[in-house]
Amino acid sequence: MTEKILAMHAGLQEVAPGQLITCKLDMVLANDVTAPPSFKEFEKIGVPVFNNTKIALVPDHFTPNKDIKSAALSKAVRDFAQKHNIINYFEVGRGGIEHVILPEKGIVAPGMLTIGADSHTCTYGALGGFSTGVGTTDLAVGLATGEAWFKVPETIKVNLTGEKPADVTGKDVMLTLIGMIGVDGALYKAIEFAGDGVKALSMDDRLTIANMAIEAGGKNGIFPVDDVTKAYIKDRVKKEYTIVEADADAKYCQNVEINLSELVPVVAFPHLPGNTKKVNEIPEIKIDQVVIGSCTNGRIEDMQIAAQIMKNRTVHKDVRCIVIPGSQWVYKEMIKRGYADIFIDAGAAVSTPTCGPCLGAHMGILTAHERCVSTTNRNFRGRMGHVDSEVYLAGPQVAAASAVLGRIAQPSDLK
Amino acid sequence: MTEKILAMHAGLQEVAPGQLITCKLDMVLANDVTAPPSFKEFEKIGVPVFNNTKIALVPDHFTPNKDIKSAALSKAVRDFAQKHNIINYFEVGRGGIEHVILPEKGIVAPGMLTIGADSHTCTYGALGGFSTGVGTTDLAVGLATGEAWFKVPETIKVNLTGEKPADVTGKDVMLTLIGMIGVDGALYKAIEFAGDGVKALSMDDRLTIANMAIEAGGKNGIFPVDDVTKAYIKDRVKKEYTIVEADADAKYCQNVEINLSELVPVVAFPHLPGNTKKVNEIPEIKIDQVVIGSCTNGRIEDMQIAAQIMKNRTVHKDVRCIVIPGSQWVYKEMIKRGYADIFIDAGAAVSTPTCGPCLGAHMGILTAHERCVSTTNRNFRGRMGHVDSEVYLAGPQVAAASAVLGRIAQPSDLK
Repeated sequence: MTEKILAMHAGLQEVAPGQLITCKLDMVLANDVTAPPSFKEFEKIGVPVFNNTKIALVPDHFTPNKDIKSAALSKAVRDFAQKHNIINYFEVGRGGIEHVILPEKGIVAPGMLTIGADSHTCTYGALGGFSTGVGTTDLAVGLATGEAWFKVPETIKVNLTGEKPADVTGKDVMLTLIGMIGVDGALYKAIEFAGDGVKALSMDDRLTIANMAIEAGGKNGIFPVDDVTKAYIKDRVKKEYTIVEADADAKYCQNVEINLSELVPVVAFPHLPGNTKKVNEIPEIKIDQVVIGSCTNGRIEDMQIAAQIMKNRTVHKDVRCIVIPGSQWVYKEMIKRGYADIFIDAGAAVSTPTCGPCLGAHMGILTAHERCVSTTNRNFRGRMGHVDSEVYLAGPQVAAASAVLGRIAQPSDLK
Repeated sequence: MTEKILAMHAGLQEVAPGQLITCKLDMVLANDVTAPPSFKEFEKIGVPVFNNTKIALVPDHFTPNKDIKSAALSKAVRDFAQKHNIINYFEVGRGGIEHVILPEKGIVAPGMLTIGADSHTCTYGALGGFSTGVGTTDLAVGLATGEAWFKVPETIKVNLTGEKPADVTGKDVMLTLIGMIGVDGALYKAIEFAGDGVKALSMDDRLTIANMAIEAGGKNGIFPVDDVTKAYIKDRVKKEYTIVEADADAKYCQNVEINLSELVPVVAFPHLPGNTKKVNEIPEIKIDQVVIGSCTNGRIEDMQIAAQIMKNRTVHKDVRCIVIPGSQWVYKEMIKRGYADIFIDAGAAVSTPTCGPCLGAHMGILTAHERCVSTTNRNFRGRMGHVDSEVYLAGPQVAAASAVLGRIAQPSDLK
């Protein structure tokens, strides 16, 4: 699938792994952290933006502005968006987290080629497109020319079979995979998900899984387009799009088998997303904080899963629990469905959409020796604050159960 | 009223302005910024806390933790609360802004003497008690002994008559008063509100007004206890309390007359709360941000006023609007009454309770040359971020109308 999409955008019949190609871009994305430095490079090129409808700018990392420095970054993005009439600029209060809103608003679609100056740009592979993170210079060139170069990646096929149990989420699927192949197991490779198991995964599951392709070192993660995809994009995507299918005889550099029905809730221990352990096999680990949100798990299904567990329960007295909807739409839906009330009644802090604590930016930073169970994507040393703090990655069901019990737990541990 | 309450707590029949007295404390308050330094002084004294039911600790300024430093401050407060079994400790997600939750939860009551290591502790005078801000050392001694010394202040009487027009709020009353007497007009003096006009002020109006007594330099602000007060505390205050009334022949150092019916919406220009101007007399001033919230205007009536204006309207494209409920209760009530939906639909960011932007801590900081209309209490240079930014203080109706129009405006400016 990845080779076909790249070839299509390079104007070639076909491409092969290792080949260097230049592709036309369908969407170029940046945020308040990555956009401003690229603007400087862009100005050096001295041309207008290649297409003001194919650029998305989302101030989401240090917003609402954490400090004077971040306020200046946000202003740089805002000024650029105004100057170049960027259609997909999302002011604070009008959007949310980039990787949550781009699929939600139909800005990304099957077959599209998207680059973003954020490593989790790989999220959109869930919709059957190619998307990947790039650095400042590639972003600047992309803004100016609408093109980028790529080395065609080899592809790992992850064959999913069976159906995941009720207490297992997309996050468990991906943490299990990263645990199997390691954080460099897919280094500069495409991860293509396939098999009968795909159809039982919701779009929110797929977005979570594709989002973390980079945590296995992947260039991108990609899902086939099926009825679930089509139902999701039906009222969202207004433009034409192309469904790309893998050839029956496609060559893969590696095949991985995962039987979803055998999975259990897992948690990635500090300090790597591949330190995956089964929750029912770990010793008692007391925690100080829980974060539910981020581009990985800030969607409405994540909120639903957490709310169902927290309903009529309270956050453990020694734990603070921070719930962050990924977008204004998720926020409204949380309110409509009563989840916001459930979280507030439980004693959780419900924040406005922001990347915030995930990258140690703000809204829930840890001091020394504090432990956090987080539905975010990285648990590197110091990621969420002090170098002597610890982040345990998990799905929303594990995060919610842990918040209630004050220790790393799964729903079945609740009475 | 102030002299009587002080005398009562000093075990004296009466006290006179200028007299130095030592009083028994009914409540001692601190937050995540002020508590930790006082703990060090407290430890030097080397005794247990005087009464674990008469201390309130509220981490609200840099929470949810903005950074590692603030996380360490929050942890210090949490550890102290656990060690000394402080009943009124409010974890993030379980309380809100100190001066919003203490009245809301019935922790402060008429006739009580409260000190707090926060200048806006004067808020509770709205309930007919004496409350004032203190420094770190006085707080430490208060925690250890349950006592504090005071110099009995002189009292300014503010006689309120008439009834305020529909588009005027408690904030306009107080900004008008500070405009009249100046930011040092009540230096180390009590401000006692009296007159027929009081009864037409809601409790939320009174809390806003008393909250800003310090912005006129006041030692405290105090309201008589009437039916509005009694209705407010009926289901909140569980303990005994004493209603103190001013003597008919009480002596005041100054009398100020305000006819509420003559007031109009006002705004305090940078960089002093006393730079009060009538909104209908100012030139066009474009703005970049609006903040609705804080211990001054983060209560449910403030949210109601702002929501009624924002309903079926949108935040101006060049403005970001940040709405911050003052407590979890206000948040829930906002959701229940549909205000949260109105704000989100309008394109505002609705935050979890925090002091945040008011003191330039986080959640809406300004960069150079940005202008903010804010319902907070101080517009000193650099208060909300960059020294070259500007803060304009106003009530929630002016803030909401300004958010919609992108310039400083009042509700009547809306079509």
